[in-house]
Amino acid sequence: MSLLTVGSVAFDKLETPFGKTDKIIGGAATFITLTASYFTRKNNLVAVVGDDFPQEMINVLSDHHINTDGLEIRKGEKTFFWHGRYHTDMNNRDTIEVQLNVMGDFDPKIPENFQDCQYLMLGNTSPSVQLKVLNSLHNRPKFVMLDTMNFWMDVAMGELKNVLKQIDCLTINDEEARILSGDYSLRRAAKTIMAMGPKTLIIKKGEHGALLFKEDKIFFCPALPLEEVFDPTGAGDTFAGGFIGYLAKTDDISFENLKRAIIYGSAMASFCVEKFGSERIQHLLQSEIDDRVAEFVQLSSFEIK
Amino acid sequence: MSLLTVGSVAFDKLETPFGKTDKIIGGAATFITLTASYFTRKNNLVAVVGDDFPQEMINVLSDHHINTDGLEIRKGEKTFFWHGRYHTDMNNRDTIEVQLNVMGDFDPKIPENFQDCQYLMLGNTSPSVQLKVLNSLHNRPKFVMLDTMNFWMDVAMGELKNVLKQIDCLTINDEEARILSGDYSLRRAAKTIMAMGPKTLIIKKGEHGALLFKEDKIFFCPALPLEEVFDPTGAGDTFAGGFIGYLAKTDDISFENLKRAIIYGSAMASFCVEKFGSERIQHLLQSEIDDRVAEFVQLSSFEIK
Repeated sequence: MSLLTVGSVAFDKLETPFGKTDKIIGGAATFITLTASYFTRKNNLVAVVGDDFPQEMINVLSDHHINTDGLEIRKGEKTFFWHGRYHTDMNNRDTIEVQLNVMGDFDPKIPENFQDCQYLMLGNTSPSVQLKVLNSLHNRPKFVMLDTMNFWMDVAMGELKNVLKQIDCLTINDEEARILSGDYSLRRAAKTIMAMGPKTLIIKKGEHGALLFKEDKIFFCPALPLEEVFDPTGAGDTFAGGFIGYLAKTDDISFENLKRAIIYGSAMASFCVEKFGSERIQHLLQSEIDDRVAEFVQLSSFEIK
Repeated sequence: MSLLTVGSVAFDKLETPFGKTDKIIGGAATFITLTASYFTRKNNLVAVVGDDFPQEMINVLSDHHINTDGLEIRKGEKTFFWHGRYHTDMNNRDTIEVQLNVMGDFDPKIPENFQDCQYLMLGNTSPSVQLKVLNSLHNRPKFVMLDTMNFWMDVAMGELKNVLKQIDCLTINDEEARILSGDYSLRRAAKTIMAMGPKTLIIKKGEHGALLFKEDKIFFCPALPLEEVFDPTGAGDTFAGGFIGYLAKTDDISFENLKRAIIYGSAMASFCVEKFGSERIQHLLQSEIDDRVAEFVQLSSFEIK
């Protein structure tokens, strides 16, 4: 089935305890579509960049069979830029510089040939942009997934709650789930948030794994304990891309398959952090993905006699 | 198989956002042996209390078929006392008052009828006391498990490293694993710690579950997401008691069985936090335990096609 991803394509400049980068390709939609490319060839991107965005970077996307018909290139404008620095523990980061540039008035236009998408991934942008995308589709997709962050809860809670009413699945981290629900207990928070609209909720807990809620069912997805986290940038988007990519591939939104999808998402995210930016997920072998998923099976399988 | 537990039996006074207690029965060995009582009737306790410790509390232990022949009651002295207050998030607590009393010079004596124990649980006390227990046994048990805490790493790291050389399994939390190893990555920390002696290591992560390491194998044990954590006191000891109790019952220290044991440990800990102190684990039905373990199976089982 076809997947449509709407979100940011950007330049990132990164500093971790292991080193620094110059401007490299980043952005939520970049990570999502690159990751989904291992699962589906019907992988459609809607984003905006400036004319400073090099053709080689667009070629990286095309090489992964990502359809960039919806990638608007604005003449005389500059691409969204983020410069971040991670602390030693990698769990915290400081934003050194943000230049919104073309993302400041992101107005996504859905090409006609993208209108039939069954799976829609709304990457982290403003809730009003996300809502606009939903409203501009001729038919509602089969499965709509949305990512957001605490920033939008601070500045646009009303719009966020509006868009939540219309989606199938929300993915946020534990801190954001507590803010959105006003409840410390993630189990109660999940109930509150699902009552806002999404019947499926994923609460990401970073190195501690993720929780998948669907109605009254819960699944705990482990994170692979890693020897080294080189760069966490994009791990959450990679997770989302693996999740929705797997759903688009299998076209099965049963709880059993959502569980498989979240395992694939976690496996893909475990690759993402091994190198800077999207470098690792640009160069994955199917055998590496299969082996990593097998590690997750090993990690969490047990049998009660 | 028979289990021997050496550790504290104490008075606790607790304050949580949900209420306060007067002096109630607490202490690591109390939680461990009460929990293990659901798995084995060969459940031997070595501890020390003062003559202020009421017979009714000893009866609670006896009612659970815990052999208290090794419970020394010191005339004219007082029982170890801890008064703690939990923060709103339940992840942090302040010690309001500690009276070491009889624990100040705890000198455990192993009764002759406890000498044949195959499973030994060394609850959190000073490493020198733990070492003394090991040295006072005529034969080395089949499986020796040890709990400790950051305090001993600060004041007695040398003695702790000495005792670690002689044990099979260490249980600590993630913060303690990082202190003991000097490494932030839990996967590398585990290697470093296992090189100190214990071939099996459990790293507890509270609400995020636990990691079980044995040589080059890893298992991720989830924690049940709870609606309410009423009182976390003793959860770690209950976890340990469920783990070693299950091992003593099944007498199988294969990795597959260690995985089952850690699931039972987590299930028992999930009961512990439901009421103050040891109240909940004093009154469990086998059917409740079976149902809770089934919840863990539900929570973490998936099948990759």
